[in-house]
Amino acid sequence: MKVIDGGITAAKGFKAASCAAGIKYQGRTDMAMIYSEVPAISAGTFTSNVVKAACVQWDMNIVKNSEKMQVVVINSGIANACTGKEGFDACEATAKAVEQKLNVPYDTVAVASTGVIGMQLPVDKLVAGVNEMSTSLDESISAGTDASKAIMTTDTVNKQVAVQFEVDGKVVTLGGMSKGSGMIHPNMCTMLAFIGTDLSITKELLQKAVSEVVSDTFNMITVDGDTSTNDTLLCMANGLAENKLIQSEGEEYESFKDALCYVCETLAKKMAADGEGASKLFEATIVNAKSKEDAKLMAKAIVGSNLSKAAIFGCDANFGRFLCAMGYSGADFDQNDVELFFKGANGELKVFDKGNPLDFDEDKALEIMKEDTVTVFVNMNEGSQSATAWGCDLTYDYVKINADYRS
Amino acid sequence: MKVIDGGITAAKGFKAASCAAGIKYQGRTDMAMIYSEVPAISAGTFTSNVVKAACVQWDMNIVKNSEKMQVVVINSGIANACTGKEGFDACEATAKAVEQKLNVPYDTVAVASTGVIGMQLPVDKLVAGVNEMSTSLDESISAGTDASKAIMTTDTVNKQVAVQFEVDGKVVTLGGMSKGSGMIHPNMCTMLAFIGTDLSITKELLQKAVSEVVSDTFNMITVDGDTSTNDTLLCMANGLAENKLIQSEGEEYESFKDALCYVCETLAKKMAADGEGASKLFEATIVNAKSKEDAKLMAKAIVGSNLSKAAIFGCDANFGRFLCAMGYSGADFDQNDVELFFKGANGELKVFDKGNPLDFDEDKALEIMKEDTVTVFVNMNEGSQSATAWGCDLTYDYVKINADYRS
Repeated sequence: MKVIDGGITAAKGFKAASCAAGIKYQGRTDMAMIYSEVPAISAGTFTSNVVKAACVQWDMNIVKNSEKMQVVVINSGIANACTGKEGFDACEATAKAVEQKLNVPYDTVAVASTGVIGMQLPVDKLVAGVNEMSTSLDESISAGTDASKAIMTTDTVNKQVAVQFEVDGKVVTLGGMSKGSGMIHPNMCTMLAFIGTDLSITKELLQKAVSEVVSDTFNMITVDGDTSTNDTLLCMANGLAENKLIQSEGEEYESFKDALCYVCETLAKKMAADGEGASKLFEATIVNAKSKEDAKLMAKAIVGSNLSKAAIFGCDANFGRFLCAMGYSGADFDQNDVELFFKGANGELKVFDKGNPLDFDEDKALEIMKEDTVTVFVNMNEGSQSATAWGCDLTYDYVKINADYRS
Repeated sequence: MKVIDGGITAAKGFKAASCAAGIKYQGRTDMAMIYSEVPAISAGTFTSNVVKAACVQWDMNIVKNSEKMQVVVINSGIANACTGKEGFDACEATAKAVEQKLNVPYDTVAVASTGVIGMQLPVDKLVAGVNEMSTSLDESISAGTDASKAIMTTDTVNKQVAVQFEVDGKVVTLGGMSKGSGMIHPNMCTMLAFIGTDLSITKELLQKAVSEVVSDTFNMITVDGDTSTNDTLLCMANGLAENKLIQSEGEEYESFKDALCYVCETLAKKMAADGEGASKLFEATIVNAKSKEDAKLMAKAIVGSNLSKAAIFGCDANFGRFLCAMGYSGADFDQNDVELFFKGANGELKVFDKGNPLDFDEDKALEIMKEDTVTVFVNMNEGSQSATAWGCDLTYDYVKINADYRS
């Protein structure tokens, strides 16, 4: 597997477009379109929030009931959540506009939205945006990059990645883009992520790979503990790589899963590092836990704790907060088995040893905590399971951004 | 029932003392002692965190296995959590110092600590503090008030309350004090709370009343979602009111429970309003939910959401964040049944009506949100159960306090 330039347009047959539809933001693009030259099979994971946005319900239906997916239309600025029947009508109007312009069945058109909850979308602007983008679809890297910028809200950087790997002698490409930033506490997948591949694979195996990979990547990041109403990951596979159809698990399936995992983990870490107001990436790794589930619970509790996040912001090696978070995570363990370390690019430091706090070198701790990525590494010494979770620090800017986001 | 002045020394036979032991804070009191003239029966609730502080384990043993409790010794500054065997030895040394000075069995002495996790307590200073306080125990209101100040950490105000009610013609008094502020997400009870009453009641019924009341009061507040290693509520009943022993549920038991509920709710709301960095009390009330459990989950999710808390700080009527939090709370409901209101002392405003966002008066919303207490009121229209939860806003000061708490 090798990493290549580009994102959602990297795989064969995938094109993208974007435009400034004036939905909410002035002077910037706020709509994007992803198009596969041939109908693709699709898989998706969606928010577990009971309050699902209209677009999430629309897409769940397509992934489940439509044989193929060919287009995704995304807007930023308004989430189309808590919008009643009018919200569903907006999804349908968008899909029907695509049908008319691109001659594809409207039930192969997915829609996704991100932004303020509880506001109605301006349908006329959406349709005008669809019409404009339908004439400017392009397979270039820059078209994909522009699309990844159009879906940003409070994100400060766009997020995309692409890789290539071989399946029975054919080069397969996998590319994706995502947006994150706030209301990030994935429980399916987080916010919006779109992945396109030219792999030939069955729908059943595509969904299986996506579900498995999401649980170890997007579902292991958190910014603020708030699971959004709009979380959506869509993956399209159009078969243009012309590999022999993958119909069963085995070497080819594993190659694809590894590549998918790399793409999802890369996008997920970019989201965590670019969390609202974040100044650094905050990583927690648990090893030798009794169960995988326990390892995940503890890793997520550490990076999800406001107190831990504030300590990371303040470069304060206040390790008791991490032990406290592990303790309320729901995992079962004995503090007398636990060893806790801080790790950075310039070394590691043990601060807690099987029940006992250590007298550690505060200068060395500060040096590690000032880095762009800070890792809390915990050896449970109780089993063989491990997990890693990613988050960010809690800063003044998070409060600033969210105290006046809507206005 | 009537509210009276005072706190932990209000009930007959209860005395308190405090001193500046120099454990961590300079120039302020940091130890307190509560003493009942006669041995009292006791009840307690403790943190559900797997990582329990040494003092929590000490107290759980006493409440469970000792027939009586007579003294509680509290220190602020160091939590005595994640401290191994040395931490247990500190509890025992404290209790034995009390035994020697006050001639009470050491297994009737509870201990409680609050402060930094992962630091050892200076036992010599603890013992010196016990010796000093043993000679200055006093039943005055001011002695109780001073004790409530000595247990503060980042609290900005001390918290105490007392009430009187009648049981078979006898006046019964119930007084309490607590401290809160950060690492507040109760799952038993939150941080430290101490309640003394001169009621005569069986140990079994005292524990039953305490457990039931805590689940609707202390367990319904949150500051930052972090369940502490040290959460402890202790209640002592010494029988000096000389009412006929309450041995079964009935009118007398209910009178006591009402008074206990008032005391606990008052202390809990004071903690929420004085959460670290808080500028206001944030209340969520759910009515007509399918189940009590669902109502509690939704009320707690609203006041616990960082995004909701930041919106409350910014006086932004961004009601979608509350619906989002209800949606991921774990409760089951249909957004098309829900009506959501903002409520304040100066009126109320409906913003969401059974699936549809309303065009509301932003000036009126701002007026309500600028008040000291902001209530989100939600009518689920799906059942008959209700719950209220309390929290506070998320401010720059929360980040400031916790980015450099330890140093």
